[in-house]
Amino acid sequence: MSEIRKNLVKNKWVAVAAHRALKPNDFPIAKKELEVSAVPGFCPFCEGNESFTPAEISAWRGNSEANTTGWSVRVIPNKFSAFALEGDLSEKHLGIYSFYNGLGQHEVIIENPAHGVEFHELNPERVEIILQTFKNRYQDLCKDERIKYIQIYKNRGMFAGASLEHSHSQIVALPFAPNENAGLTEYFRENGSCLLCDMIRQESTDGERLVFDGEHFILLCPYAPRFPYETWIIPRRHSEHFGDINHEELKELASILNVFTNVIIDSLGNPSYNLVINTAPVNVSHEDGYHWFLEITPRLLVNAGVEIATGLFINPVAPELSAAMLREQMPAAEQK
Amino acid sequence: MSEIRKNLVKNKWVAVAAHRALKPNDFPIAKKELEVSAVPGFCPFCEGNESFTPAEISAWRGNSEANTTGWSVRVIPNKFSAFALEGDLSEKHLGIYSFYNGLGQHEVIIENPAHGVEFHELNPERVEIILQTFKNRYQDLCKDERIKYIQIYKNRGMFAGASLEHSHSQIVALPFAPNENAGLTEYFRENGSCLLCDMIRQESTDGERLVFDGEHFILLCPYAPRFPYETWIIPRRHSEHFGDINHEELKELASILNVFTNVIIDSLGNPSYNLVINTAPVNVSHEDGYHWFLEITPRLLVNAGVEIATGLFINPVAPELSAAMLREQMPAAEQK
Repeated sequence: MSEIRKNLVKNKWVAVAAHRALKPNDFPIAKKELEVSAVPGFCPFCEGNESFTPAEISAWRGNSEANTTGWSVRVIPNKFSAFALEGDLSEKHLGIYSFYNGLGQHEVIIENPAHGVEFHELNPERVEIILQTFKNRYQDLCKDERIKYIQIYKNRGMFAGASLEHSHSQIVALPFAPNENAGLTEYFRENGSCLLCDMIRQESTDGERLVFDGEHFILLCPYAPRFPYETWIIPRRHSEHFGDINHEELKELASILNVFTNVIIDSLGNPSYNLVINTAPVNVSHEDGYHWFLEITPRLLVNAGVEIATGLFINPVAPELSAAMLREQMPAAEQK
Repeated sequence: MSEIRKNLVKNKWVAVAAHRALKPNDFPIAKKELEVSAVPGFCPFCEGNESFTPAEISAWRGNSEANTTGWSVRVIPNKFSAFALEGDLSEKHLGIYSFYNGLGQHEVIIENPAHGVEFHELNPERVEIILQTFKNRYQDLCKDERIKYIQIYKNRGMFAGASLEHSHSQIVALPFAPNENAGLTEYFRENGSCLLCDMIRQESTDGERLVFDGEHFILLCPYAPRFPYETWIIPRRHSEHFGDINHEELKELASILNVFTNVIIDSLGNPSYNLVINTAPVNVSHEDGYHWFLEITPRLLVNAGVEIATGLFINPVAPELSAAMLREQMPAAEQK
């Protein structure tokens, strides 16, 4: 029998296998190979094809001119953006319905000029540049008062929602703050302390869900994970905004992401995964309790009818067992 | 630019393409063929393999004995159930965390003895038996006071979370009522009327999101659909519980499901889809405003990082266009 656990951050119920874990290759999806071709048909993200994308917003490049070759990381507007930074937010009514205009911004970060080299194959120095690009874009987008939330995320593989295989991440800037991490502020209101700080304390004592114990970051499988092998990367320093990450933290995070994405790829049979950065709203007064963190969700299961209809996730992998497995795969020398 | 529409039932925001629609074969998933083999390796749901499943709960059969051949629809406990109907619900605390025991029931309805015949290929008479089985199980499970919600659903295809290809549906009986359709009771509290009854009225006047206008049921693409080509099947008669469906309604629903699943399969390139029945909580006092309905969600897109992190769905298909396309595929003779 499972335990029906409360995910305190997401305010969701999860039916978690308490003492068992499906192995990675027990999942039907794991048997579908992800093919990333080294030579694609035509890819607008490849070096040399700069003219096929919208004009770049920024890029890490040598002396070359904007929108030409010679870059290592490149930021462009999403050509199929659902949002545009035009005018003000306005609500319209249609009988019982209502809608807002799609005020916002949608950007793509191309992580490497060459096709077929994936995020986990990039060296830590390149990952550092990518994270620095995230930070720069975060801080720049914050300056627009109409933006209330900045979501940075990566979809790797078909089962994580990737539609282009060339390695990239995305940023969506929204005109309202989503409510998905409402548990953080609710916990603070009730307990007068930060949920993630308290979580770090309890998980460090206990240790059974710890994956890695770094100087600035702690990796753990959360108590009520929505996805099998879901892992959170939490900064030890209490800080609301990802944009406030400091140089030391950014350097360690790059190294951890490099190591950990390889652990995921190697030990879970090359799965699709998402990487998302949870952070506080911007340009709007909000309750206390936010503490930014990263979430990595391997996608070995598809949300099925029961999740769609009830919001209850059924997870056949106990986080205590997934943490033990992932912990074992982390290079020993990296441990604090 | 999209419109950010409020899904009133689900209380979710959806960024909906306002005047465009990706065609079914523009989705990367659509290009992966779903192969359903007529001759499987070994399938525990096939006629003749009854001894490989847990003992049946009920079955439509002639004179044959339980757990032998000779059935048309068979209900069994889910062998890998996360839940068990044992003892009472109890909460335990572990520091900041808490969990409930997995009190509940998880059943499988095998819809046909033969492998490789799918739901949309069954005749309306068989679909009627399946719906009658749903109703019987719903009413039976309600009798256990510990059960507070009954979720009936179907996962068809890998991208809808199906792990076995032999045609089947599932029922999960839960010890608490989920909150996913909270918009129904909120609307009633604020307006003193039923959201779905008001929706039927507005959509019938307008007509642009209508797919089919039956005697007892109306089919529409909702104003803020979370999934491309998402369609709701709503009974005209205001009724809280699926279990209260009457004979006339059940007969029409069987015919509609037979026609509409074929429309989905034919016009959307044989997609994975979910079918879920939304209904009111049972054995617990609850607010007014529930009105049961079916949701059919083709799975042409995978929930990606932005949906996981923010709860905001990005839908590249305008429901006004998906409704027009699906409406055109419905056999004219079936219209009221």
